Parts: sequence; structure tokens; C-alpha cells
Amino acid sequence: MTKNFADSLLDAIDEKQNPSCAGLDPVLSEFPPHLLQEVLDEYRKEHDFDKLDYFQRRELLRQASSEAIYRFNVAIIDAIADVVGVVKPNIAFYEKFVAPGINAFERTIRYAKSKGLLVIDDSKRTDIGKTSQAYAQGHLGQVELIDGSRDVGFDADAMTVGVYPGSDSVGEFIKVANEFGKGIFVLDKTSNPSSGELQDLIYSDQFGGRTTYEQVALLVDNWGRELKGERGYSFVGATYPEQAQRCREMMGDAIILVPGYGGQGGTADDTMPNFNKDGYGATVNNSSALTYAWKKDPILREKYGPHGFAQAAREAALLMRDDILSAMERHDKLPSGW
Amino acid sequence: MTKNFADSLLDAIDEKQNPSCAGLDPVLSEFPPHLLQEVLDEYRKEHDFDKLDYFQRRELLRQASSEAIYRFNVAIIDAIADVVGVVKPNIAFYEKFVAPGINAFERTIRYAKSKGLLVIDDSKRTDIGKTSQAYAQGHLGQVELIDGSRDVGFDADAMTVGVYPGSDSVGEFIKVANEFGKGIFVLDKTSNPSSGELQDLIYSDQFGGRTTYEQVALLVDNWGRELKGERGYSFVGATYPEQAQRCREMMGDAIILVPGYGGQGGTADDTMPNFNKDGYGATVNNSSALTYAWKKDPILREKYGPHGFAQAAREAALLMRDDILSAMERHDKLPSGW
Repeated sequence: MTKNFADSLLDAIDEKQNPSCAGLDPVLSEFPPHLLQEVLDEYRKEHDFDKLDYFQRRELLRQASSEAIYRFNVAIIDAIADVVGVVKPNIAFYEKFVAPGINAFERTIRYAKSKGLLVIDDSKRTDIGKTSQAYAQGHLGQVELIDGSRDVGFDADAMTVGVYPGSDSVGEFIKVANEFGKGIFVLDKTSNPSSGELQDLIYSDQFGGRTTYEQVALLVDNWGRELKGERGYSFVGATYPEQAQRCREMMGDAIILVPGYGGQGGTADDTMPNFNKDGYGATVNNSSALTYAWKKDPILREKYGPHGFAQAAREAALLMRDDILSAMERHDKLPSGW
Repeated sequence: MTKNFADSLLDAIDEKQNPSCAGLDPVLSEFPPHLLQEVLDEYRKEHDFDKLDYFQRRELLRQASSEAIYRFNVAIIDAIADVVGVVKPNIAFYEKFVAPGINAFERTIRYAKSKGLLVIDDSKRTDIGKTSQAYAQGHLGQVELIDGSRDVGFDADAMTVGVYPGSDSVGEFIKVANEFGKGIFVLDKTSNPSSGELQDLIYSDQFGGRTTYEQVALLVDNWGRELKGERGYSFVGATYPEQAQRCREMMGDAIILVPGYGGQGGTADDTMPNFNKDGYGATVNNSSALTYAWKKDPILREKYGPHGFAQAAREAALLMRDDILSAMERHDKLPSGW
């Protein structure tokens, strides 16, 4: 039987004794310059750019950009693979380089999995029925190829999805996730300043008197009810940055993907309401403050410099783990046995 | 000065005297079998599949699948380019073939534009601030490549975007669209059965007493107010399948992308409330009932067969145009001069 994603995620968290998730959101201007130069030199050595037409040159520059992204990710993954159990590449930062960027995204997923990490494909896909099915098949399941054979697409372990079209859209993701032992995280409360424009509005009493995000939490709880793993959590999770307490109660069995730590200014204490009393139920993401610690953290910058970017990320990951674990201790939420 | 997308769209609709939009949602099993066989034979002739490893073989099958998609689209575009002014490829059906699929998506956009068509990139992207910016740059604007140069990504004329994170997310798309003369269509009311689960719930009086989709219509109207072209419409549009009358009034200057005609069962009369009295303000999409007319329409199937798939699509596009134009006449919404 295929293992339930919620069980896989909790096992990964236990193995590393660390509920954090490392976001892999590549931004070339944050990469160490020598890495960009190295890749660019290789491409220039191999191809005579002056002899290429505009489209060929653009394609090669996209490929070189994507190769730099892949190498950066490989270095980061190698450095943190024994510290964190989960990585979360956000496809927007790959997709902007069109096909070569998507290729780097797929290779990143494959490499992370080969190092024993779980991968949350952060693509926030959403559409109506058949189109959601196509996304679900492509990102989590299998697709039919031209010769009639079936094979995986991105083959991530889990993905983030939008909620706006409701259950027959999310249901397509759930169906595929269920079949292939994958997970989904439904976008519930987002961590941006304007998230309240829709998410915080309150429905009339006739419609339950809840905010939009509470209504979504209710849907998530319903969707996940039958889909629990052996450890009691569902493979249908949600995203949550704040107002977590009430929604933690509303979705007792959902695993919550918590953005906002680090770069977005959240503290370890802020993340605690997302955890259940058993110490599980959440994974806390950190993207740029971790991957670009070599540049963004004055102390780590001084200590490691651009050539030590991966080691700086590793130290940032260790600091984050310790920060969260001590908050768990303070809040009496450290899992037993850790 | 860059032309406002709303002006471009209305001009394209005028030129063809046709407000319809052709959806390009490739599904291999709906393609004429000879087209698939032809591409597969070419790939098998050029590569010895037995000598390839698993990953190489899979990559080639993805490439062949994507090449079939591109050829299908080229044939359809050639056949309909003098009938419709706008095409709308939905990226979900390309993305499932990973990088080669994305390449076919980009080539489809380029080919359609080379034939004078406008392209709405139907990707329903949504995320918070910086990530939405990456999507906007990649799909509509420019991205920075590894050598520091800037160039376009997908370079679509417009794209569909999600609304759930609110204005600082949609704002990133608006900013890029404004800079590059592009358009966006905000997902407002979707055409699937469960769309009411959130979209039809009514907020309390304190929050305006509107449904969620009306609240979104209000946001769209606000976002679009300052972004009108010379013809009085905004480049910030919305999607709308039903309850159109009230929202048409709420968003007088927005162009509405109307799904649901054809394959999803909507009639020409159903689409009329989306049009303003001047006969503009909407583009009506038809995807599978148009592109797969050779298979789905018994009369066209009989008449054209699989080898005439592109001609069948052309006739379906003509029938759809005539159907909508006579509805416009009945509703006294035919633009003056048509």
C-alpha cells in the first residue's frame, strides 16, 4: 500500500527532529557572483554567441540561467540534507526562464528526492475540473504520453493548490494525491499585507458567520477527514501565517504549511499556534533568509562570504531549527522522544 | 506609447467582427490519430529508443507529445486566423509534459502572434508579492538573465490571474501589464459546479452584504479604473460565466472573458449579459467544442473526418461567430459598423 503523505512528512520531521522546510526560490541577483560567472563562462566557451540568432542566444541564456539555478540548489541541498527533511521550491522563480527553467525545477525535485528529502512543489495551481486534473496529473500523478504509455510528470511529493473554485477543483488534486500517496496544501490564509481584502471578510450569519479563511479551513477539514494516515494526520493540509489558533482547532488533522518565518519577519513563537499539543501538525518554511544567508545575514556573510554560501545556508538552517525547538520547549510542544 | 491591451483587444474583435476566443487546450486523446502516429514515427526513425535509458526515453516521449501539440495548434491557428482575433491556450495542458510541454506552449504563443492573433495566456497564476512579480515578469514582462541582460519570457498579450491574496498580489500583475501594454483577467466567477462554495457566499452587511464574487468584481472595478485605453475599457478584466448582469454593471469598463460556451453547455444568449450596450466588453471562449469539432460534432465529423480536423475547427468557429452575432442582433448589442 502506498504510504500516506502525512505519515511520510511526520516521519521526515521526526528523523531530522526538525519541523522546518527550506524554500528554494532562486533569484539570480542573490546568487554568489562567482557561480553565475562560472556557468556563463562554460556556456560561452561551448557556444559562439556571436554566430547565433536572437532566439538561439536567448534560449542559451535561459539554459545557462537555469543551470546556475540547478547548481545553486544542488549545493544548498547537499549542505542542508541532514538538517531539514523537506524542501519547497516555488515554481514561479523557475517558470520565468520558460522551458529551461521548468527543466531546472524538475531536476531540483529529482535531486532533492535522491537525497532523501520530501519535496513540496509550491505552484499554487488552481482551475476548474478537467484543468485541475491536468495540473494534478502533471505535478503529482501520471500523464499519458504520445505512445499511450503513462509516466510521471514533475513527481513532487506534495503541492500547494488554490481554493477559490471550490471542491470539484480541489477534489481533482485530492483524487490524484490519494492514488499516488502524495499531499496537497490548500492556500488558506496567505502571508501578504493585502490578504485580508477577501480572506478576513466575514460572511453573514446565514452563511455561518465565519471569515473567508475560516470557511476555507472548514472546507479543508471536511476534505481531509477521510484521508488520514496511520499517525492521525491528513494528506490535505493548508497554509497558515496568522490567526492560527482558531484554525488549528478547526482543522485538527491537517498539516499546516507555515510561511513567514525569517525573510517575512515571523518569529518562532509566532509559529507555535500552528502546532498541535503533540508537537506535530505544522512545517515552518524559510526561503530567502535561509538560502541567501551568505548575503542577508551580516554575521554569516562575514563568516562565510560568497564562496561559503552553502555552508552559510546550513548554519542558518541549524539556527532556525534550534530557534524553533526552543520555542517548542517553551510552549510545551516538543514531540515526545525528541 | 505602448498601446493599451483593451484597445488592442477591441480592435482585434472589430477586425474579425467576432467577439469569440478560441481556447487551445491540447488533449492527445482528442487529436486525430494520424497526427500522433506521424510525429511518433519521426521520433522513432531519428532515435533508437531501445538504446536509450529510462530518462532519455521519457524525455523524448515528452518532446514528441509536445511536438504533436504544437503541430495541432499550428494547423488550428492557420485554419481560424481569419475568423477569430484571440486565442487562449491553457498552460495546464502543456505543463503536464514538463519542460518540452512549456516549450510547445511558448512556441504556440509565438506562432499565434505571428499570425496576427492576440494571445491570452490562461495560467491563473497567483501568489504573494515577489512571487506574483516573478510570474508577471515571466508571462507578460521581462526577466533578468544570467548575463544581466533583460528579455521577454512567454511574452503573452494577456494572462489570467487568481484574486485570493488580494491587491498586492494582483497589483504586481497590473504593474507589469501597465508597463508592457499587456492585459490581465482576474478570476472572478468560475464556471464549475462547486464555484458557489465560496464565490456565492454573502458577506455580512458590515462588509458590504455582497457575495464573494461581487466583492471581487468591486475590487476589479477599482483596480481597473485608472487603466483605461482610448476606447474606454480597462486592461484589467475578469472571468464571468453567469450572474453576469449585476457584475457587468459593477465593472462597466472591464472586459469580461466568458467561459462556458460550447463544450460547457452555455448558449450564445447566455453570454449576452456580459456585453455592454455598445456591443463590447466581452470575449467569449470556446475550447474543446471548437478544436475537437472533428470528433465531438457528429455533422462535422461526418463531413471532415480526422484528416480534416483543422477545417472542422474552422467551420465550428464560423458557426460560433454567426451564433453569437445573431444573439447580439436579437439583444440589440451588435456594435455599430459591423
